[in-house]
Amino acid sequence: MAAEIVNPPSDTDAAQDEFFDPAFALHRGGKMAVQSTVPVRDADDLSLAYTPGVAKVCSAIAEQPELVHDYTWKSQVVAVVTDGSAVLGLGDIGPEASLPVMEGKAILFKQFGGVDAVPIALDCREVDEIVETVVRLAPSFGGVNLEDISAPRCFEIERKLQERLDMPVFHDDQHGTAVVTLAALRNAAKLTGRGLSELRAVISGAGAAGAAIAKILLSAGIGDVALSDRKGIVSADREDLNPAKRELAGLTNKAGLTGSLESAMAGADVFIGVSGGTVPEQAVASMAPGAFVFAMANPTPEIHPDVAHRYAAVVATGRSDYPNQINNVLAFPGIFAGALQVRASRITEGMKLAAATALADVVADELAADKVIPSPFDERVAPAVTAAVAAAARAEGVARR
Amino acid sequence: MAAEIVNPPSDTDAAQDEFFDPAFALHRGGKMAVQSTVPVRDADDLSLAYTPGVAKVCSAIAEQPELVHDYTWKSQVVAVVTDGSAVLGLGDIGPEASLPVMEGKAILFKQFGGVDAVPIALDCREVDEIVETVVRLAPSFGGVNLEDISAPRCFEIERKLQERLDMPVFHDDQHGTAVVTLAALRNAAKLTGRGLSELRAVISGAGAAGAAIAKILLSAGIGDVALSDRKGIVSADREDLNPAKRELAGLTNKAGLTGSLESAMAGADVFIGVSGGTVPEQAVASMAPGAFVFAMANPTPEIHPDVAHRYAAVVATGRSDYPNQINNVLAFPGIFAGALQVRASRITEGMKLAAATALADVVADELAADKVIPSPFDERVAPAVTAAVAAAARAEGVARR
Repeated sequence: MAAEIVNPPSDTDAAQDEFFDPAFALHRGGKMAVQSTVPVRDADDLSLAYTPGVAKVCSAIAEQPELVHDYTWKSQVVAVVTDGSAVLGLGDIGPEASLPVMEGKAILFKQFGGVDAVPIALDCREVDEIVETVVRLAPSFGGVNLEDISAPRCFEIERKLQERLDMPVFHDDQHGTAVVTLAALRNAAKLTGRGLSELRAVISGAGAAGAAIAKILLSAGIGDVALSDRKGIVSADREDLNPAKRELAGLTNKAGLTGSLESAMAGADVFIGVSGGTVPEQAVASMAPGAFVFAMANPTPEIHPDVAHRYAAVVATGRSDYPNQINNVLAFPGIFAGALQVRASRITEGMKLAAATALADVVADELAADKVIPSPFDERVAPAVTAAVAAAARAEGVARR
Repeated sequence: MAAEIVNPPSDTDAAQDEFFDPAFALHRGGKMAVQSTVPVRDADDLSLAYTPGVAKVCSAIAEQPELVHDYTWKSQVVAVVTDGSAVLGLGDIGPEASLPVMEGKAILFKQFGGVDAVPIALDCREVDEIVETVVRLAPSFGGVNLEDISAPRCFEIERKLQERLDMPVFHDDQHGTAVVTLAALRNAAKLTGRGLSELRAVISGAGAAGAAIAKILLSAGIGDVALSDRKGIVSADREDLNPAKRELAGLTNKAGLTGSLESAMAGADVFIGVSGGTVPEQAVASMAPGAFVFAMANPTPEIHPDVAHRYAAVVATGRSDYPNQINNVLAFPGIFAGALQVRASRITEGMKLAAATALADVVADELAADKVIPSPFDERVAPAVTAAVAAAARAEGVARR
């Protein structure tokens, strides 16, 4: 129907694509909107929701600042903050081009966690500029979800914001991935009758996700974990490490492995891929019997599931078209919902571990090699994670109600 | 029902108030939410709205930046930016306490203009800090509505943002008020058979609203306009004027009035109050026959309508319980809706004048002394203002589609 075509096809790729790719049609006009939750039908409504009624509410908050959590949306809204420097597999595409991902994130927050979220794509790159900007914005929000900010800046930005803000600050590319990975690993170990302390893991990728996975596996009591970057295993003897990787070298790799990823995989119990790239089949074959292969690169896993299944007891990917999808949406909505529910001043390691355990336990009674992690659409997930995170916040003394 | 009481009454005023004042009950949990405008029910939905489908949309925007307007919510969402320094009649209550007003503004944007809006209450005060912060945020938004920022900083912040951003930047306390005041004045003049050029106006208040009203009245061709602040009429001979008032002294007061507000009102055709304070009845009595009194202070007009009616031909206030309410909601939703519709790079003087004329014309066929301006709930208003602003943007060459 020609009348519906607003922008006719042009010679550009994007305009051509729109007529063939349903993703473009779906994205037209964006994916989100704001709505009023109170009536504004007549002068009486207006006099309560706006002047003069609103003045009493403002005055009450000015007098007792904590009332802002009761009488505004602050405590239910998260800023999804990016600089567009490390977007999905696309890399540095800048703030505007990252907006479709940030809107996507925002609607997932709402759909899965009941949390309101607003995309904030920043036109600045220096660590201190980003930190200062987010601190200035913070009065309007109950939490900050950092998203798609390149390593190693993301580590420093998160740390500085956590120091300065009295609210949850969470870099999902790190901790969301780490929580879901740990949940899957817990269940894989349970399924195969092993304890985490018996396992040696190798992580391909030492950026945001790899670093956070290594740290949460250590917190959870893994036997040993080593990471590799493009130059091989991250080890204390390397002289080319940035401060973030130098810290990792000190925390990980008790065995003192050096050399290539492939050599480190020999005899390893767990492979975790968050890097892209391809791992040769013989490296997979060299792993310990009953290994776990979590090849999470999207859209092309580091190890194809068909190959992995020849050697591994449990296989997971980042893809929705294979079983055991390691998908952050299993974690971040419930983590923020739980933290906001109790007005947590931060998200602690204990809250993340509790989220992973709760997530794993959702499928405790259905455990199978192709079900070590729930589906993103399993409706039990968000309530379980929310409750566990809220309880952990109370237990750790960071809850404020 | 005790079970519903989340926070039982305490000794604090606010907690006591909540049990008696419906404004508190209405504000509990805030007044707004985010919603998804696309389905996220299953893996297929997710693969279009999020990964992997979203990557193609991001890539297209990276390649052709203007596509951000087509495929995200950017072009329909306005940041409602404040520092909480001049909130309603409450003054400097800070960013958190201003949030109920900013949420109210956001829901009025939606209700009356169909425009999404997000409260951004900033924890900073220096002009350049606010400007820099808003510039960094700008990729996420299609326009900036400045709100409740104290004069004279508001003038400099608006000017600097307009210089740096290629999008509508509009300080509603200035220009929204000015547009609605001009609309009412146009109709009052029409009703009484006079031209604007025959009229001499006195404005009580030389802050954000007073300055903008003076400027738009001059643009519209008023005969003369003088402003007064707490020290009397703003005139070129005064040596205590800040730069903003010095500029006003140069633009206004052709008659060279000096001295008190009351003395300037003698023989004046129009009184416009945006100051608070009280004007003595004898000053009203000294105005020209058939005067217009727009006493807009809230909740206490500078001149009570009953007093004004003894002398004036047309009386307007800022209150919803008297006829002729000068209410910004008659202007800002349609002004932004029109500007965003055509992707205007700025809001020009011509667009504001067009908004005022369109607003006045809504009640052209119903003109009466108690109906020189439409009701805020007149459904003809927003479409008329939107269309006029979009057309003016095209005529002035600032529209981009």
